[in-house]
Amino acid sequence: MVPFDVEQVLSELTLEEKASLTSGADSWHTTAVPRLGVPSVMVSDGPHGLRKQDTVLGGPSLASNVPATCFPTAAALGSSWDPALLRRVGEALGRETRAHDVAVLLGPGVNIKRTPLCGRNFEYVAEDPHVAGVLAAALVEGIQSQGVGTSLKHFAANNQETDRMRVSADVDERTLREIYLPAFEHVVTQAGPWTVMCSYNRINGVYASQDTWLLTRVLRDEWGFDGLVVSDWGAVRDRVRALEAGLDLQMPAVGPRPDEEVAAAVRDGLLDEAALDRSARRALHLAARALPADGDPSTLDLDAHHALAREAAAAGTVLLRNEPVDGAPLLPLAGTAGLLVVGELARTPRYQGSGSSQVTPTRLDDALGALRAVDPTIAFAPGFTVAGGPDGDDDALLAQAVEAARTAGTVVAFLGLPGPDESEGYDRPRLGLPDSQLRLLAALTEANPRVVVVLANGSAVSVTPWRDDVAAVLETWLGGQAGGSAVADVLLGAREPGGRLTETIPLRLEDTPAFGNFPGEAGRVRYGEGVLVGYRWYDTRDLPVAYPFGHGLGYTTFAYDDLRVDVHEEGADVRLDVAVTVTNTGDRAGRAVVQVYVRDPEAAVMRPTRELRAFAPIDLEPGASRDVTFTLGARALAYWHPGLRRWAVEGGRFVVEVGASSRDLRASAVVDVVGEPLWGELTGDSTLAEWMEHPVGSQVLAAALEGAALPDLDPTVAAMVAQMPLRVIADLGVQGLTPQAVDALVAAAR
Amino acid sequence: MVPFDVEQVLSELTLEEKASLTSGADSWHTTAVPRLGVPSVMVSDGPHGLRKQDTVLGGPSLASNVPATCFPTAAALGSSWDPALLRRVGEALGRETRAHDVAVLLGPGVNIKRTPLCGRNFEYVAEDPHVAGVLAAALVEGIQSQGVGTSLKHFAANNQETDRMRVSADVDERTLREIYLPAFEHVVTQAGPWTVMCSYNRINGVYASQDTWLLTRVLRDEWGFDGLVVSDWGAVRDRVRALEAGLDLQMPAVGPRPDEEVAAAVRDGLLDEAALDRSARRALHLAARALPADGDPSTLDLDAHHALAREAAAAGTVLLRNEPVDGAPLLPLAGTAGLLVVGELARTPRYQGSGSSQVTPTRLDDALGALRAVDPTIAFAPGFTVAGGPDGDDDALLAQAVEAARTAGTVVAFLGLPGPDESEGYDRPRLGLPDSQLRLLAALTEANPRVVVVLANGSAVSVTPWRDDVAAVLETWLGGQAGGSAVADVLLGAREPGGRLTETIPLRLEDTPAFGNFPGEAGRVRYGEGVLVGYRWYDTRDLPVAYPFGHGLGYTTFAYDDLRVDVHEEGADVRLDVAVTVTNTGDRAGRAVVQVYVRDPEAAVMRPTRELRAFAPIDLEPGASRDVTFTLGARALAYWHPGLRRWAVEGGRFVVEVGASSRDLRASAVVDVVGEPLWGELTGDSTLAEWMEHPVGSQVLAAALEGAALPDLDPTVAAMVAQMPLRVIADLGVQGLTPQAVDALVAAAR
Repeated sequence: MVPFDVEQVLSELTLEEKASLTSGADSWHTTAVPRLGVPSVMVSDGPHGLRKQDTVLGGPSLASNVPATCFPTAAALGSSWDPALLRRVGEALGRETRAHDVAVLLGPGVNIKRTPLCGRNFEYVAEDPHVAGVLAAALVEGIQSQGVGTSLKHFAANNQETDRMRVSADVDERTLREIYLPAFEHVVTQAGPWTVMCSYNRINGVYASQDTWLLTRVLRDEWGFDGLVVSDWGAVRDRVRALEAGLDLQMPAVGPRPDEEVAAAVRDGLLDEAALDRSARRALHLAARALPADGDPSTLDLDAHHALAREAAAAGTVLLRNEPVDGAPLLPLAGTAGLLVVGELARTPRYQGSGSSQVTPTRLDDALGALRAVDPTIAFAPGFTVAGGPDGDDDALLAQAVEAARTAGTVVAFLGLPGPDESEGYDRPRLGLPDSQLRLLAALTEANPRVVVVLANGSAVSVTPWRDDVAAVLETWLGGQAGGSAVADVLLGAREPGGRLTETIPLRLEDTPAFGNFPGEAGRVRYGEGVLVGYRWYDTRDLPVAYPFGHGLGYTTFAYDDLRVDVHEEGADVRLDVAVTVTNTGDRAGRAVVQVYVRDPEAAVMRPTRELRAFAPIDLEPGASRDVTFTLGARALAYWHPGLRRWAVEGGRFVVEVGASSRDLRASAVVDVVGEPLWGELTGDSTLAEWMEHPVGSQVLAAALEGAALPDLDPTVAAMVAQMPLRVIADLGVQGLTPQAVDALVAAAR
Repeated sequence: MVPFDVEQVLSELTLEEKASLTSGADSWHTTAVPRLGVPSVMVSDGPHGLRKQDTVLGGPSLASNVPATCFPTAAALGSSWDPALLRRVGEALGRETRAHDVAVLLGPGVNIKRTPLCGRNFEYVAEDPHVAGVLAAALVEGIQSQGVGTSLKHFAANNQETDRMRVSADVDERTLREIYLPAFEHVVTQAGPWTVMCSYNRINGVYASQDTWLLTRVLRDEWGFDGLVVSDWGAVRDRVRALEAGLDLQMPAVGPRPDEEVAAAVRDGLLDEAALDRSARRALHLAARALPADGDPSTLDLDAHHALAREAAAAGTVLLRNEPVDGAPLLPLAGTAGLLVVGELARTPRYQGSGSSQVTPTRLDDALGALRAVDPTIAFAPGFTVAGGPDGDDDALLAQAVEAARTAGTVVAFLGLPGPDESEGYDRPRLGLPDSQLRLLAALTEANPRVVVVLANGSAVSVTPWRDDVAAVLETWLGGQAGGSAVADVLLGAREPGGRLTETIPLRLEDTPAFGNFPGEAGRVRYGEGVLVGYRWYDTRDLPVAYPFGHGLGYTTFAYDDLRVDVHEEGADVRLDVAVTVTNTGDRAGRAVVQVYVRDPEAAVMRPTRELRAFAPIDLEPGASRDVTFTLGARALAYWHPGLRRWAVEGGRFVVEVGASSRDLRASAVVDVVGEPLWGELTGDSTLAEWMEHPVGSQVLAAALEGAALPDLDPTVAAMVAQMPLRVIADLGVQGLTPQAVDALVAAAR
């Protein structure tokens, strides 16, 4: 039921009222027009839980909110590679949002993890746009299925927190199109988020909030987005230019001045009223589609949501390593006898990051409690202190933990980054764990060969100094309010560690793609690595890594056999049908995350060694086998042609690889694809080689020169001349070609 | 003796005559104005020898020229690190240029070796701008001491041949200022070349030939260049815009049309006649300073020049490896008994690259001939074929060579890149040696443990697959017409291998800085590595290399002791006096190339781990010791501040390292330097942190807020807010700051 007629209302609004609709009423509400029945609607932070705040932004803390289920952060959810799970989490998020009378949950975030040091990576899904887009779309569908909206953010190229409100992401269009935009594109086109939130930063010098190309050409004209574009809080610099560019709603309220500016701009002819109408219409549409404010939090089944958060946290937990000790891997634990839990983080969990996404949880599980619920005799030594945990002396705690470890059967060490390391608003100071934890771990592994490390951090940490010394490593990311019980489930084998890496764990900071180009200088950050982000960088440069993208062990094993790839159609219509047989070769049920990568070994542009183009989580009983099929469209083969400025399928050989990570490829097939014609227009600036490769140009040239060109040149000179623009050849008088003749050739080629 | 009065002539020229002075009369001559006594002067290709051509460019070959001494290419000359030697080579080049009535020798080239695959690297000096600038300045001084001019090229950012006539080098200003321009700057300001040649390519979208910033602001206004700017042959696209930008002379002649265009543009008011006058004056000045055409080639002492070429080639030869076999290193060879020379390149030398620098030598030494001149019984097996050498079957040649190697005392294998791999006009297809040579070498090393490899190539080749299997490696680059005898001198110990690497030899192409960003796409190449070029990349990313920048063994050894660094003055006037004691610790005379690197461990911008700031070749008798002193000015510590757009000395700790390569540092010292004030102007866009760090801003802020700001915020939020621009803080209403209050603060801070 639409409570009012948008067009009718729009026609009755005064100029000032229209302007008022395009900015907030306060920190969290849109502006109402009571005389015409237009309600104010509330929006609230997300994305992994509802952060409905009563105090205004900038108050003393971000933590005074209504309690809401704190689901695993995007880093953990993303690691599940499970769209169905994200849809269910989205439904729960939507129910809570609806129950609290919030119309729009401000999330999810699909920015690409360009560097592990980005302070906000925990809010983002992946270093790869395909997995980020597919999973975020499922989350959006889930949330919006409950009658509330989402805000896909931060659009776009917001890949760091340092200087985020000013910095210009200097990034070429191909890189934007192939890496930083496709996750947004996928969610917009597949899931229709109610709103999109622009980022603070500039892109190639233009504020995202004022970027017509981004907000209108790409988002609306190309992708067909029909919702509302809202600013990130405080992201608007020039309100009038923002409206012109396609920014509909400035948030939060900043006093009456900006609305007056907008009305005055229209009156003075500086802003087309149609632009204001356009944005006011979208604001009305949002108000019209919002449900009435009659939610009731008491109807929520918070136990069920907690249970879902627990399931999701286990699904996002990545078993990085599980080497045999005394003949058998330590995980899942054979039992709890002799178990020693070490690490304050087992008792004082890190389960989310800092900033606007900081949910006030409905309850909070810790791993120690969850384990002791199974066996109250499990020993514990804090080992180190963390902010928010009990005070203590790290040296004494270390000694105590090591002493206990000497006689323990198995040691599970809960390590992680300090909370203040990971926040919105600034970036991480380091890649590694704190020194106190490293010292502790070194002493533990010396005292006991049976050490399992459980990590809690929002983005990759360095595991290089110690990974070979421990038997098993479990990466839990920031797992939300049920992360503690979930990791207990995984340790004890009650659940699979369902996660696979959506970000590479590098050996060293110096190996990371943005190293040297992060966080930029003097307000600009050069995306110097171009499309070589994440595994695209490590694989193309053939660099060793600690754990590759897509990696994650389970408690069983799988075989991938009989890969079949069939090519249908050609060019922009090409389609690849991919099938592979997956078999659970272990002795317990488990999940394979089947990953399909494509490479284009020979192309006119530099292409990454491989790119993820499809994936599927497959549950199989022991011994069971299943055919898994995928359909890849033209986009899976295409690159963004920087000259033609469109997607282009270049003909030739393509390799389809299927496996369990970008470096654990179990099967590959080579196919031949007929490409699109990709000729640019021939001009005098086109090289001789381009003329000779062009179907028309070569004929025109041959006819004009009657075969007189080049044969007399020595091969080195001929190769040199082939790379010359025709016009330069004429200027140099090579073979008697004249500028006039070039003009005639160009005319003839058209 | 100035043959005519430039200003007088200028005042008498017609518009058309002025225009005619700004383009060539033919391929190699400027335009004369006979009625006013203005002669035509001839220019000819260089830079490592005179290429005076009779045929027009674009004829069937670049090789039909008057014979001239072919000195070692810039790659080899540069490896000498010896300015005095380059000055002497320059004098000889100047004498030959003068004798052949050529007024300007078109060279040297000081483009930075961004990638080993650049086809024209052999014409360039280094991957480092300091060594390139110092050596090229010496060459220019030498040439110009003979009354002829030079043309410093290719200005600027011409670091590849692929698409060189169109490609835009997309490179930020700091990188230009720190890496790609300083060698030009040094030569212009220290040696005053008569002319500078603009490059073909674009820089950030603007053709170098039409780049006012480059040709006028930087070159003339900042560096004080007072000579003539000539186009590379065919580099002018828009003649009128080029003149406006500061391009004085278009070469070669392209018919009357462009001059007419220029005159018409002046008549139509589209070109300021003052701009034309400016360029015509420079053309007149060049014609006036050129000596009369009365040279006499028969006066040249070509024997002396050949001897100098031989000396220079040895000085540029780099001994990469010289491991003991049977207790002693193989080089210098103990004698010629049992010596086997393998490799067609010993008989058919590669001594220069292809393209415009291809000199017709006065004579040509080959290594085999030079060695057999010492001992005619030295055995030889060609091993493989090369273009231009006798035909043969590589497999049979390989078998024959290996058979000979089995019984040889020592094998010297002459390997290198095929000639067509290295040319102006296109880039190299590969980093490694040809497969036939690799196969040969593998078989040789299996047959005989005493293998010396002598390399001939214009830029780094991969040595990774085989370097550990051979006893010694001698890199001769492309050593000019006496390279063959020079390498015989070095092998036999008659001369030192005087060279040190001016380019890193990487382990793999994937490790090179431009990998993935070379050669670019759709007419643009992203300089994604920024200032991390060459060793700056490998050292900052801490990547293993085959042989580091600065590396080169001699036949003796040196100690570096007692490093002293004294700081004088501060800020922009700072001066560091560096002294180190160098001792020849071996038993024969030799040369140390003392290298001084500076690092700035903490800076507001990303800085390379170390940068070469001074060097000196020091000859010492065995046991002799010498204090070597250097003075480093502010530029040695400064970076180009991308915000302030000027050189900036940031205060703090600096580390001065002295050694024999970028990875063989023998001594280091830490000094404290008082920096310059580097505050930008405070605005509402300045962050809270910037306000609080600013000496005035912090006071203004404290007074205005009366200490009310921030103390109540939790630390994470405080850190977040510190990175916010004041204006955004006001928009968000944090701490009650208003936009009006921000305006007042900005006013007060000024």
